[in-house]
Formats: sequence, C-alpha cells, structure tokens
Amino acid sequence: MQSADAKFNKKSLLLALRRYSSAISDMEQTILLPSLLRDVPSDEVWDSEAAEESCEDLYGNYLMLKAIRNTVESGLIPLDDHKTKKTTVLNKTLEPLLNTDPEALFRFHLRGLFSVMSELTEKTRSLTDKYMDIIGAAN
Amino acid sequence: MQSADAKFNKKSLLLALRRYSSAISDMEQTILLPSLLRDVPSDEVWDSEAAEESCEDLYGNYLMLKAIRNTVESGLIPLDDHKTKKTTVLNKTLEPLLNTDPEALFRFHLRGLFSVMSELTEKTRSLTDKYMDIIGAAN
Repeated sequence: MQSADAKFNKKSLLLALRRYSSAISDMEQTILLPSLLRDVPSDEVWDSEAAEESCEDLYGNYLMLKAIRNTVESGLIPLDDHKTKKTTVLNKTLEPLLNTDPEALFRFHLRGLFSVMSELTEKTRSLTDKYMDIIGAAN
Repeated sequence: MQSADAKFNKKSLLLALRRYSSAISDMEQTILLPSLLRDVPSDEVWDSEAAEESCEDLYGNYLMLKAIRNTVESGLIPLDDHKTKKTTVLNKTLEPLLNTDPEALFRFHLRGLFSVMSELTEKTRSLTDKYMDIIGAAN
C-alpha cells in the first residue's frame, strides 16, 4: 500500500505546477544572456505550423516557456488573440468529447494538464542544459 | 480596457475551482437526506455508456459531484481503476494532439478544465434546486 500511495502522491497537479515554476526559476537564474539562444535551432519540431512560428529557435522556446509560467502562476485562462489555426484544430478534436459525461472530461483534462506540465518541465531543464553547453560550462 | 480586464478575471481556473467547491458545500448543506435522490432519473444522459453506470439517477450524480470535489481539493490525479472504456476513447481522441506543440496543448487542457468545471458547477446548483423541488421547499 505504501508504494502505491507514494506513486499516487507524485501524480499531483499542484506539485507538477510547482515543479514547472521551479524549473523556470532555475532556467532564469542560469540563462543570464538569453540572446545567446537566438538562431540556435530547436531540434524539436512538433508540426509544420510550429516551424512557421516564433518557437523555431531556442530563444523562441525560452520566451514560450516563460510565458506559460506566467499563465500557470496567474491561473488565468489566456485569451485567444493569436494561434487561431491551432485553436480551431484543437476545438475540432474536442467535438467528439462533447457527448462525454463531465466526470470523464474532467479526468481527461486533469491528466492532460498534468502530462503537458511534466513535458514542459523536462523541456525547460533540457533548454537550461543546452545553454550551459553553449557557454561551455560543465553541468 | 476595464471591461476587457473584468472579462479576463472571470476566466481564472483557480476561481472556477473555488466556485465549484463552494457550490458543493451549498449542495451538502441543503441535501440533508441524499437518499431521497435515489431512483429519481437524471434528465441528462450523456451517452449510451453513461446510462449503464451509476450516475443514471440523481443520487449517482450527487456521489459523482462530491467525488470530483475531493479530487479538485486534493489536487491529485485519479488512478485509472475503473471507466477503462471511456479512458480508451478519450486517449484515442488525444492521439492527433500528440504532434501538437506543448504550448497549444497546455492552453487546450487549461481551457478544457475551466470549461468542464463551469459545467459541473452549473450541474451542482441544478441538483440542489431539484432536491428543493422534491422536498417541496420554495427556492
């Protein structure tokens, strides 16, 4: 039972959000010259649209990760002022979910948010490591 | 600007979670005899699977809404011990999202969670009103 409990406690959304904020703080304290990340290509391209947007170099990733932290810490839902195409694609994905009962939908989004926060934390740490490589510092 | 700000402040996930907890507290204080909700059919049937499960009467809804509040307040991601079919359906829905960049995915789940919390709050208030009707109390 004890190990199951321990596993369960790791799956906390609040902890995942805190871990993310903490990874961003580390990143900010390490990356003193963010402009060194300009024009360094990101090896992750998620889809063809991503390449057209500002996240294509590591500097874009850096800004994106910081913007998400601000949203996480404010708790506010961002307005849809840009990224309209992507939102449309995601809303279409949502359509088959609309007939799902709210409990299943609640679990789906809670898990989804947990999972994407873990991914973003990993990404933040990896970006911090890459900066250390760029400036030639040992990790 | 002021009205845009006011609109923006309403879109806070933390506020939505608090509103839900508060609606559940009202429900618990009002519904002193939850067993009166047994066998009262819920007029909302989300899909064919929902009808097979425990939420088909108002008592089932009452238990489900309370269980979600516990998850919301603990902040823990529920383990997948049941509702396996539904989870499979939702995970299939997630597949096209996997190539999406994490920022868009983050916004999608944040909005989704906000939206489902608002729906559950409405549902909790409506269940409380129905109980008042059942016991013949004026709202």
